[in-house]
Amino acid sequence: MMARQKIVVFEGDGIGPEIMAAGLDVLAAVTQGTDFTYETEFLPFGGQAIDQVGEPLPNNTINQAKRADAILLSAIGGPKWNACPKRPEDGLLALRSELGLFANVRPTVVADSQIDQSPLKTEIVRGTDFVIVRELTSGAYFGEPRSKTFDQAIDTMYYSRSEIERIMVYGFDLAQSRRQHVTVVDKSNVLATSKLWREVGQAVAQRYPEVMVDYRYVDATAMAIVADPTQFDVLITPNLFGDILSDEAAQITGTIGQIPSLSAGATGPKMYEPIHGSAPDIAGQGIANPISMIKTVSLMLSQSFHQEKLAKQIDEAVELTIRRGQVTPDMGGTLTTKEVTEQVMNAMQEGV
Amino acid sequence: MMARQKIVVFEGDGIGPEIMAAGLDVLAAVTQGTDFTYETEFLPFGGQAIDQVGEPLPNNTINQAKRADAILLSAIGGPKWNACPKRPEDGLLALRSELGLFANVRPTVVADSQIDQSPLKTEIVRGTDFVIVRELTSGAYFGEPRSKTFDQAIDTMYYSRSEIERIMVYGFDLAQSRRQHVTVVDKSNVLATSKLWREVGQAVAQRYPEVMVDYRYVDATAMAIVADPTQFDVLITPNLFGDILSDEAAQITGTIGQIPSLSAGATGPKMYEPIHGSAPDIAGQGIANPISMIKTVSLMLSQSFHQEKLAKQIDEAVELTIRRGQVTPDMGGTLTTKEVTEQVMNAMQEGV
Ligand SMILES: CC(C)[C@H](C(=O)O)[C@@H](O)C(=O)O
Ligand SMILES: CC(C)[C@H](C(=O)O)[C@@H](O)C(=O)O
Repeated sequence: MMARQKIVVFEGDGIGPEIMAAGLDVLAAVTQGTDFTYETEFLPFGGQAIDQVGEPLPNNTINQAKRADAILLSAIGGPKWNACPKRPEDGLLALRSELGLFANVRPTVVADSQIDQSPLKTEIVRGTDFVIVRELTSGAYFGEPRSKTFDQAIDTMYYSRSEIERIMVYGFDLAQSRRQHVTVVDKSNVLATSKLWREVGQAVAQRYPEVMVDYRYVDATAMAIVADPTQFDVLITPNLFGDILSDEAAQITGTIGQIPSLSAGATGPKMYEPIHGSAPDIAGQGIANPISMIKTVSLMLSQSFHQEKLAKQIDEAVELTIRRGQVTPDMGGTLTTKEVTEQVMNAMQEGV
Repeated sequence: MMARQKIVVFEGDGIGPEIMAAGLDVLAAVTQGTDFTYETEFLPFGGQAIDQVGEPLPNNTINQAKRADAILLSAIGGPKWNACPKRPEDGLLALRSELGLFANVRPTVVADSQIDQSPLKTEIVRGTDFVIVRELTSGAYFGEPRSKTFDQAIDTMYYSRSEIERIMVYGFDLAQSRRQHVTVVDKSNVLATSKLWREVGQAVAQRYPEVMVDYRYVDATAMAIVADPTQFDVLITPNLFGDILSDEAAQITGTIGQIPSLSAGATGPKMYEPIHGSAPDIAGQGIANPISMIKTVSLMLSQSFHQEKLAKQIDEAVELTIRRGQVTPDMGGTLTTKEVTEQVMNAMQEGV
């Protein structure tokens, strides 16, 4: 009998709680009667935590999170907290840093069945299947000094060799289990940090002779994602560039309401979250698309708990539900969050 | 009789000299017999200057450039100079800085006649007509300190209030002559410089009550350019974000071989250049697309010399040439650089 797993849950802001409920319902359903047992611990985080205890990442939250076996997060932030001294986003940055989640992995896959959703022409986007590996705990997001007065502001981009090396290794390892092709993304014709990025990329590449590598400027990459996305397999990017490119990449699938992501450190729990935001404009209406969160749960099952079979049950049920058009308005359907979730659970039953 | 205008010419690297020759041929042809007179001064710059005198921006080049009435640049850089202590790109950055060219303006227009070139679906891209106003002399490209050792590297993003204010004013002024809609782009949920960027944007917006403004994160903007490009009119971005977004934007037109850009300071000559790179892979083959450079010449005529009529003659001749399919391989044609240029000049004759 496996030990009971501890899953820390950050419900999030905006549509966060609605889609998290959906994800947890599916988790409960898929694991029922199996020997995978777990407990969930809901902890205040982000805007919710600011409202409850006055700061986005309370001490108890981070301490408990460190002891989790996995962490589920929906999405945080919203205009409500724009004026706060520490915003929900600051809590997210601190959380990534405290947990050492240096590798953020975002898949960009365009299934043939959903190719019509893409804003790109079919012949350009067909077959797109790549992953962006974004460095998540350094770079412009964390470099010091940073300051702002009425008259001027400063941010610092910083990278150490070891920070670059570990994310390169993560990306090259991942490429070995895929199509063995890495694209190292930087702006090494201008930035010092990018020059080091490319140098370390070249050094690490030596150790992976079977992996094909190319080196691309971030601006050229932003072009290529639109012009020729099937060329990519694994892209390895600094923190800030990864933020921009992974959103651009998500958009070319036309399915941002369906994409999960994973953040991993060297040790400790991994964190799983949809790539989209908290969508405060549609919060509370019961129409948020739960598929991203349901797929996030599936990703957690396979990547943190080796429950590939359960993950596959979820993924197939989601596929079926989408094919049946039982989807929320953003996907052209008329169902509510709850109804889609029920349809997915029904489809899982059928699959048994 | 107008004074003779002095046009400084940077031939550039890779395909640079080939397309510059095309642009200058068209300039000579369109101005012949008019009272617009000019002289060109070819100066070493970029990789060419490294080869000739050992550095990308020689003193004499910058001194002469400052005295120009306008500057034409094709494109610089290439792998050949990757190992140089100062690369062609360093020369470009120094040139922008020395000339105070703080505003880079890149149009993204999708003409109905070329809509098939776009990688985006027709219904999404039809009607796209926006301009990216990129800050060009500060931000991550210029902030100090910057350093790199074997073990670590640092870049500094810096913005002063006055630097932000002048680019905002430039963008808002431009919006007044267009559809009166500004999108201020930043990453103010994370970066200190972006918080200041947005604050100053809000302050400047007060002075333009007739301009509609929205504020957008750079990652969300990277999405929106692909998902819904017709929503934009004028985007105002920091230097680094503008580099990435303007390339992404250019790509959605599917016509990067045809797009000119302009860089302007508070005083002094403006600089005009195609947005694409130096394409060393096809250099010397005589097949580079000259249209970007020809349109760059046209942009110079209208924006530096108020020769709207001549500019229009060029633009119409280019349109006609494209419609006739008399284009280079990158646009699906079979003509050489020289042949396309001749076709444009013939078309101008017909127009007379
Ligand atoms: C919310 C924000 C701080 C965050 C980021 O920029 O990393 C988000 O955009 C993301 O990509 O996860
Ligand atoms: C060549 C390079 C330094 C330059 C930049 O990054 O500004 C180019 O990409 C551009 O956009 O003009």
